[in-house]
Amino acid sequence: MTDLYASRTNSTAAIMARNEDVVWNDGNYADALSAGQLNAYRRDGFLLIENVFTPEEVAALLEEVVRMSKDESIAGMDEAITEPGSDAVRSIFKVHALNASIGRLARDPRLIHVARQILGSEVYIHQSRANLKPGFTGKEFYWHSDFETWHVEDGMPKMRALSCSVLLTDNNECNGPLMLVPGSQMQFISCVGETPGEHYKQSLKKQQYGVPDPLTLSLLVEQGGIKTMQAKAGSVVFFDCNTMHGSSSNISPWPRSNVFMVYNSVENTLEQPKYGLVPRPEYIATRSDFSALEPLDSVNSQTPF
Amino acid sequence: MTDLYASRTNSTAAIMARNEDVVWNDGNYADALSAGQLNAYRRDGFLLIENVFTPEEVAALLEEVVRMSKDESIAGMDEAITEPGSDAVRSIFKVHALNASIGRLARDPRLIHVARQILGSEVYIHQSRANLKPGFTGKEFYWHSDFETWHVEDGMPKMRALSCSVLLTDNNECNGPLMLVPGSQMQFISCVGETPGEHYKQSLKKQQYGVPDPLTLSLLVEQGGIKTMQAKAGSVVFFDCNTMHGSSSNISPWPRSNVFMVYNSVENTLEQPKYGLVPRPEYIATRSDFSALEPLDSVNSQTPF
Repeated sequence: MTDLYASRTNSTAAIMARNEDVVWNDGNYADALSAGQLNAYRRDGFLLIENVFTPEEVAALLEEVVRMSKDESIAGMDEAITEPGSDAVRSIFKVHALNASIGRLARDPRLIHVARQILGSEVYIHQSRANLKPGFTGKEFYWHSDFETWHVEDGMPKMRALSCSVLLTDNNECNGPLMLVPGSQMQFISCVGETPGEHYKQSLKKQQYGVPDPLTLSLLVEQGGIKTMQAKAGSVVFFDCNTMHGSSSNISPWPRSNVFMVYNSVENTLEQPKYGLVPRPEYIATRSDFSALEPLDSVNSQTPF
Repeated sequence: MTDLYASRTNSTAAIMARNEDVVWNDGNYADALSAGQLNAYRRDGFLLIENVFTPEEVAALLEEVVRMSKDESIAGMDEAITEPGSDAVRSIFKVHALNASIGRLARDPRLIHVARQILGSEVYIHQSRANLKPGFTGKEFYWHSDFETWHVEDGMPKMRALSCSVLLTDNNECNGPLMLVPGSQMQFISCVGETPGEHYKQSLKKQQYGVPDPLTLSLLVEQGGIKTMQAKAGSVVFFDCNTMHGSSSNISPWPRSNVFMVYNSVENTLEQPKYGLVPRPEYIATRSDFSALEPLDSVNSQTPF
């Protein structure tokens, strides 16, 4: 079968039209979002919803994340990624499994029903992480489509996954907020070059392969512009797995922290990686258990965290 | 005589109150700015004025700057500074002397009379440069006060100089606009550590010495916040030599270019650098000629560029 989304095959860069829906089954699988919200998501490839979590909930989550980032037993795990040239923890992977509060967050009705509705099926967590972009020294994250990596390196077949970023600090113009290219989810950017083995060890710190070329990025931005996700803590950004995104460095004193979770459809589970690549570790790409995640009962759980 | 602004003396960091005015002689030396604008500059340490130059003037200046950046004879000069890890020209120093149009820009009434009014005297160009922060790869510039460097490395006695940035491209939230800390001009931040000889060769690419410590920066930002200079091409930012500033990286496709000129009062000419440092080269700090710059006659010069 031809790979519709071939990439890194050493050819020149190419732009290919997306082959599947952005919102699956017309958004009828659940009813978390309004028609207007669904349409905006379909058009832009993302949706920012403000005030999803209360200040108390945010404070509890942030406390968990900060505590974990200072926990030496966690800093020594593969799951903990440090800043380039520093010991400061930048990301903690598989955080929904490492931490019970964040495990409940993944099943929170305010998140999981949005994912179920957009993806038109039950869902599971393909990847989760807590990100801490520290003040003063937070490094930039160059433009990329997550799906390009997940397709090539993880063997994710289709664009039927989404990311969800729960903001734990205020994101403003100065602390390197998420930048998204509206409409970019409709085009697959095939990247130049091959992927070396165990590439993920470096790419989690600094992207080098699977990088879109400047001309293609210029075209995407000419079409859609760039939107920065400036919003208060407690807001949530949902974005399609193929939406082009990145973020600038953070020299402000204000850290930028979030919990990031990737919901994948249970009808889109991983196959083998492309080009004979060895599968990435379980903490980066769930492969051992594709069973549907059970939503928390919103009525009976008074204290989700 | 005691140095009121001692820095890099290997002691701990310190915050010292500014010893002189921000606006000199009550702003009576010229009449380019209104009382409201002068008060804002005195309070904030900067002033953004929009639509100073016409699109045609901006286009002509940008063309000159881009042409110079691609001129191999200029790229080989000491005056041309490249991006870290790249051959792309990031800055061209002494650009007012290298280029006749920019030489006239330095004398343009819309700029020089503002400088004369704020500094309360005739002025000359202490330093000039064209900055090209390219799209995709533009690096961040960490927080610094220019005066700290000019005082220590150039022997500038007092805070009686200002910078003027003429925007040649639109500056927005995505392409690493100038960030300023309002009110920071009122405090001198003494930095920790010594300055190695010929430090300037590296510092023009990446600041390493004369860097304010995180705690002090946090205090300044707590007091004044951060303002980003988002404005259209043709706007001008004037800011005090001691205003804390920096900028983030630029991964957007949009380059960020400006012409940057430092006006110093003819009553504040350079002395010897501190601590026996060798004076920096003439193209970074004018030392051979402190004579007053003559304003262009605004009536008789129909085409300043």
